Amino acid sequence: MKRIISFAAAMAIGLCAYAQQSFERVNTTSPEFNADGTVTFRYRNPKAVKVQLNSDCLPQKMTQGPFGVSEANVPVDMKEGPDGVWSYTTSVLEPELYMYNFIVDGVKEVDLANKYMCRDGANWTNYFIISKDSSDAGHYYSVNDTPHGNVARVWYDSPTLGMTRRMTVYTPAGYDKNTKVKYPVLYLLHGGGGDEEAWATLGRAAQILDNLIAEGKAKPMIVVMPNGNTNQIAYSESAPGMNDYNKGERALGAEAASMEESFPDIIKYVEANYRTLKGAANRGICGLSMGGGHTFRTSLMYPDTFGYIGLFSAAATMVHTMDREPHPDQLRSNVKFNQDMKALFDAKPKLYFIGIGSTDFLYDLNKANRDYFDEKGYPYEYLETPGGHIWKNWRIYLTHFAQKLFQ
Amino acid sequence: MKRIISFAAAMAIGLCAYAQQSFERVNTTSPEFNADGTVTFRYRNPKAVKVQLNSDCLPQKMTQGPFGVSEANVPVDMKEGPDGVWSYTTSVLEPELYMYNFIVDGVKEVDLANKYMCRDGANWTNYFIISKDSSDAGHYYSVNDTPHGNVARVWYDSPTLGMTRRMTVYTPAGYDKNTKVKYPVLYLLHGGGGDEEAWATLGRAAQILDNLIAEGKAKPMIVVMPNGNTNQIAYSESAPGMNDYNKGERALGAEAASMEESFPDIIKYVEANYRTLKGAANRGICGLSMGGGHTFRTSLMYPDTFGYIGLFSAAATMVHTMDREPHPDQLRSNVKFNQDMKALFDAKPKLYFIGIGSTDFLYDLNKANRDYFDEKGYPYEYLETPGGHIWKNWRIYLTHFAQKLFQ
Repeated sequence: MKRIISFAAAMAIGLCAYAQQSFERVNTTSPEFNADGTVTFRYRNPKAVKVQLNSDCLPQKMTQGPFGVSEANVPVDMKEGPDGVWSYTTSVLEPELYMYNFIVDGVKEVDLANKYMCRDGANWTNYFIISKDSSDAGHYYSVNDTPHGNVARVWYDSPTLGMTRRMTVYTPAGYDKNTKVKYPVLYLLHGGGGDEEAWATLGRAAQILDNLIAEGKAKPMIVVMPNGNTNQIAYSESAPGMNDYNKGERALGAEAASMEESFPDIIKYVEANYRTLKGAANRGICGLSMGGGHTFRTSLMYPDTFGYIGLFSAAATMVHTMDREPHPDQLRSNVKFNQDMKALFDAKPKLYFIGIGSTDFLYDLNKANRDYFDEKGYPYEYLETPGGHIWKNWRIYLTHFAQKLFQ
Repeated sequence: MKRIISFAAAMAIGLCAYAQQSFERVNTTSPEFNADGTVTFRYRNPKAVKVQLNSDCLPQKMTQGPFGVSEANVPVDMKEGPDGVWSYTTSVLEPELYMYNFIVDGVKEVDLANKYMCRDGANWTNYFIISKDSSDAGHYYSVNDTPHGNVARVWYDSPTLGMTRRMTVYTPAGYDKNTKVKYPVLYLLHGGGGDEEAWATLGRAAQILDNLIAEGKAKPMIVVMPNGNTNQIAYSESAPGMNDYNKGERALGAEAASMEESFPDIIKYVEANYRTLKGAANRGICGLSMGGGHTFRTSLMYPDTFGYIGLFSAAATMVHTMDREPHPDQLRSNVKFNQDMKALFDAKPKLYFIGIGSTDFLYDLNKANRDYFDEKGYPYEYLETPGGHIWKNWRIYLTHFAQKLFQ
């Protein structure tokens, strides 16, 4: 039997090459993890004139963006060597999950020598993890030798939006086995341009939760990652070239309702279909950027629903108007807004968390929001980290926030 | 409230662009689905000398591969237009899920203007679906307005392999709600170079099952898609650059046991953690290429376990030796092999299915296998389709086989 199997394995490897034979082979090694802690990227293209590496593993600099100034990537030139292989070696990298792409004669390309690639909204990026010991960030973002939770693509009905929609649900290790145990729930929201898969890919939510739970640093919990774009049934499943028939997708701006208005559909589905603990003490909500705004407004709309509220680099306007002109007094003097905020804090959430990068272009907005909290005496926990509007910070905030939940 | 939300949405779109600002924008439209049923591909690269399209939507031709001659892709030249945008327009395409890549001056690249990209083992490919009406292949591979099953990444213990491993599990629509209902199980195996995600991506297994079940053409069933590479804990989670600490991954050839030997671990986990109907009448197994070989040998090793057995373009050697030299009499005259085959058919499987493409390089091998079945009088159903060793055929076989299961 062994011999048959060996042949099958050998054949299998051949078959893979065979099926792809008419594709040019990507036979460079990239990235290469050097013994000294540096990383070498390679890209083979003899005809290219200029090849650059664009990555958050490179030094960042303050850059003007459409909404303000923030720290951002600065591409570096790669050097051409023999056989048209372009390369670049970094300095020693700190433990982290890094993203990168190449820019070939001005055109964005991905590194097809590296099979690790994922999607941030419509943008594809390669990625890799650096980890040096079992206490660093890279460790928490990796699959380690611990019990693992499962991650499911789950469809649910949203009567408010008139759609059957998809979300991602993490159930902690032991959920399927411990059929009498009920769990608290964290609702974890993505940012603008993202979708229901963002936190489970670049966000490494399952790995962060697996590792924290295994070490006893976080309670076992269900994590629900819905799609915050209420014009979509799900990423990738309703668009020309995927399914012209699907009536689910709507034009942006033609949503039947907002994320906040449709949020009860999500909670209702989760609490009917999973073994959940009920009540505000067993529900958390947090989100990054646009999802921070969703979190802010959802918690305000349903003040006795969430005991734990987390705003990560939040695009949440409390003291500015909606037209991006700063009229700090508009919401501040809005009677209903102040009543809603009072109702939220009268319900005494166990934790209201605000995290922001010190060079995030939303820093000033978040500062103004904190000023409002301070003025009113509403308690919150604040974490300021270096860096801009980046995934690195959102993973840090999730790792931090998850340890505070349901204690 | 509406105004806040509109601002948040606008901001969200901006944020996405912002975070990616230092990437060159991919501002071509590709693919474009023309009203006449043709498709135009575009790739912007003013400095490129030669750009080709490589796709299974183009005419195929017989090509020599490492194991034999099979129909395969033939790349076509794209034409450069204004602004360095290369383009190619196909003939009218039949309904199907198609894969494609570009070849830029001999280097494989993907189409980053098309957000639909997936992985076939270590190979990334863009894809799109053509569907014209609700009876065609493209329809069955799409998410339609029907109830949907969920797809989960599930970790299970494999004591035989000494690993905790990941598999993909489809539970049909209603599974979570109908908590008293038990379901039959199909074990669906990938091919060489693939992994536990192959059938859920290019295989469109969830969509095929959703659509067949919704139309009453297939029974609601659980579909289990394990990883057939017994050196891996899962795709992507244990390798340098993902997790150097993980001891799960072994060198190829250093597996603790074969897929066949470890298969009972999978069944045991599934039947302990899902609401399953037991017995051979409620278990099916099928697989493509290497997975067809796994299917053949697993069904032979456990003859009273599976009532439905499906070999899709199977790399299953029944009458050839393992050294690839045809010694047709070696297994044919092997006493244990003949006893095992007799035991399998004495258990009267409800269906033994063999599917193969007429230009598959494994055609002759499969013909020799069928000759053995015919000689022994073992009943099987045979489906021969045009084309080679390709996903198009494997989706057709799954669509066909699924309708025969558990009836």
